[in-house]
Amino acid sequence: MIADTIKDQIAAGQYKPGEKIPAIRALTRSLGVNKATVHKAFEYLKREGVIDNRVGSGSYVRFPDKIHAPNHFFDFRTDYLNEQFFPYQQAQSIFNRLFEEEKAQALAPTPVQGDPELLRILSRQYHLPAECMLIISGAQQGLDLVSKVFAANISESIVFEDPTYPGAISLFRARHFVPLESDGPDLDQLDLQLKSQIRLFYTMPSVHNPTGLSYSHQKKEAVAQRARRHGFYIIEDDYLGELDPAQSRLVDIEPRYTIHIKSFAQTTLAGIRLGFMVVPPDLYHQFVYAKFSSDITSSGLLQKFLREFIRQGLYGTHLDRVREQAASRRRRLHAVIDRFPFLSVPPDQSGYCTWVTPKMALTLNHEPWCRGQEFSFTPVFKSCFRLAFMHMNDADYTRGLSYLDTVLERCASADSD
Amino acid sequence: MIADTIKDQIAAGQYKPGEKIPAIRALTRSLGVNKATVHKAFEYLKREGVIDNRVGSGSYVRFPDKIHAPNHFFDFRTDYLNEQFFPYQQAQSIFNRLFEEEKAQALAPTPVQGDPELLRILSRQYHLPAECMLIISGAQQGLDLVSKVFAANISESIVFEDPTYPGAISLFRARHFVPLESDGPDLDQLDLQLKSQIRLFYTMPSVHNPTGLSYSHQKKEAVAQRARRHGFYIIEDDYLGELDPAQSRLVDIEPRYTIHIKSFAQTTLAGIRLGFMVVPPDLYHQFVYAKFSSDITSSGLLQKFLREFIRQGLYGTHLDRVREQAASRRRRLHAVIDRFPFLSVPPDQSGYCTWVTPKMALTLNHEPWCRGQEFSFTPVFKSCFRLAFMHMNDADYTRGLSYLDTVLERCASADSD
Repeated sequence: MIADTIKDQIAAGQYKPGEKIPAIRALTRSLGVNKATVHKAFEYLKREGVIDNRVGSGSYVRFPDKIHAPNHFFDFRTDYLNEQFFPYQQAQSIFNRLFEEEKAQALAPTPVQGDPELLRILSRQYHLPAECMLIISGAQQGLDLVSKVFAANISESIVFEDPTYPGAISLFRARHFVPLESDGPDLDQLDLQLKSQIRLFYTMPSVHNPTGLSYSHQKKEAVAQRARRHGFYIIEDDYLGELDPAQSRLVDIEPRYTIHIKSFAQTTLAGIRLGFMVVPPDLYHQFVYAKFSSDITSSGLLQKFLREFIRQGLYGTHLDRVREQAASRRRRLHAVIDRFPFLSVPPDQSGYCTWVTPKMALTLNHEPWCRGQEFSFTPVFKSCFRLAFMHMNDADYTRGLSYLDTVLERCASADSD
Repeated sequence: MIADTIKDQIAAGQYKPGEKIPAIRALTRSLGVNKATVHKAFEYLKREGVIDNRVGSGSYVRFPDKIHAPNHFFDFRTDYLNEQFFPYQQAQSIFNRLFEEEKAQALAPTPVQGDPELLRILSRQYHLPAECMLIISGAQQGLDLVSKVFAANISESIVFEDPTYPGAISLFRARHFVPLESDGPDLDQLDLQLKSQIRLFYTMPSVHNPTGLSYSHQKKEAVAQRARRHGFYIIEDDYLGELDPAQSRLVDIEPRYTIHIKSFAQTTLAGIRLGFMVVPPDLYHQFVYAKFSSDITSSGLLQKFLREFIRQGLYGTHLDRVREQAASRRRRLHAVIDRFPFLSVPPDQSGYCTWVTPKMALTLNHEPWCRGQEFSFTPVFKSCFRLAFMHMNDADYTRGLSYLDTVLERCASADSD
């Protein structure tokens, strides 16, 4: 019962994720119960995953954990590519040739910032300066390095889009949000946030997660101009920008204030955990050092694999195929969604996901998608959901679409009852 | 000149690594100079690598960066294995078979805590519980995860051995040290440290870096008993314990208070960045979550490679060969050192390094080894040095030994001048 009271207080927003719950002693007084009762309630809330104990510090409202067991039925949750899309035989040949040509050197250590030849190739391919570039073990590590370089009071000094990528919410213990409109952030709201001590703005300006939208070029310019004026850094998370190659990049518009993070885990396969980041020159040394203290360096063997995969043009061909497949799967998915007038999707989405806004709340016990509240603390997004459509194989996807159709049909009839 | 004054103050210990330097305004007053002069001195010290600016927080005495360009002459610094020791053809066959058998599934994502089959095999091989085990991208990441789980005020609440691994000093911004004796830590000093709020003790009880020593079993018991009594956690960094397999482990003596970290980067090759950690059950969830927010998961492909390398018995055979080669190279190195009566090495060292204590300070501009001050802030270790002997290939090592002989000969004659 005490546990329910605390749960209600959390649901009502009295304590937000990451906030400290008053100590047992204080609650004993304020709730007028004995210590053992409060202690039992805390133990219960901990088991339930509502609060977290931090060693030597107290109890905190838990940030939503973004560690999901994939849904083994029809997985519209996971936004990684299915393995069928990846040319594994070409990968096998590359590993073979690496061992033939470099022998055990294929497994030699690389410099902290990355394999020099890979840096050179990436620099040429992405038109970004190699001397400000750093190889990372995936985009999440890029964010982790930012949290290290800007450690002091970070959760108070970073602004997020709303909705946004949950891995960033949890890592940075997000407190400040700017609502996303169809062409980018609400600039008035952003200006309001900039009145406090903001040092960072975390954004996915192209192929945004979860909405699949991209900023207009004007909004990108407007964000860059604010970064210059207020002196904050933009974290441009380019986790899937290649799916919409016509998009402009903030790192080109304002390199001095942009920390650009590019992932390969999403465009190749999750078993290859690599990405790169490009940072403003005056922060470079700090980022290299943060990388070193995180994991010394990313696997040299995988770096050499990626180097060859790009150099031989295989990556380009692979991307073309992925874009084509994604477009076709999206069309099939939208054909299903369009049958239900209570569902709407924004136009001009790209990437591997579609973001659905229903006119009513769909209540399901085991929905096959990611719910809106995984991407936002704002009630308005609670009924939205994200459908990822590139993780199933072809056969499962076809069956998955008709399963989805059944599920939505059931929601529709439940509503008309 | 102002810069020199500040440098002298740092050398005299007035400001220690990680400590904040007074603001420019304060120094202007205390040194009686104008603001521009102090500003210039700060800029100079920053360029020199003596201080660091942290965005929005001020200037700090810099922790020694442990990012070294390897010495390309004769490298007695680097403590990774040379590639010649690694059976790369067997590695090549494993990758081939993985792609043949698993096809693109070889590159599928793994759960956050690691490939289940690898966890099972490691559990059996190392007699440690799989349900408390987590695959990490090398031992440094294990330390980084500890720094995340025990974030609050960590540099005040962790004790280190003196000397110790520099990657840990920098990561945790070390403040508390316990001198190491030939059989383990000075227990009286440890007890003194335990009077303050200590939550962690970072130790390499077997094949210690840089000294190559191992604790006696009695001292291991004594440390475990103190962990139980005071409720602190032991970080057992088992980066190279397999080089001395008869050693007992703290994780066996006191599993409830031991965070055990095992690296494979040192025993295989640095291009394979993998390790595992075993943590007390009540901390497991927090560590899995810290791993997720650091880099989601370690490369599935490399995990599968390691799984096969161990399962097929290749790792065991490889270790036997490495131990044999290390013993032989150590004998040859000690034969050189023994020629110089002003040098002494502790008995019963193991691993890839030897720790040398000279009777006098050896002054060289470009010494081929790691200097004592990289492992300790204590003046007594300043003249010591560490010689790593497994990173050169056979031909370079033979020439390296005679180069070392020449260098030491020169030191000897300089002293007798």
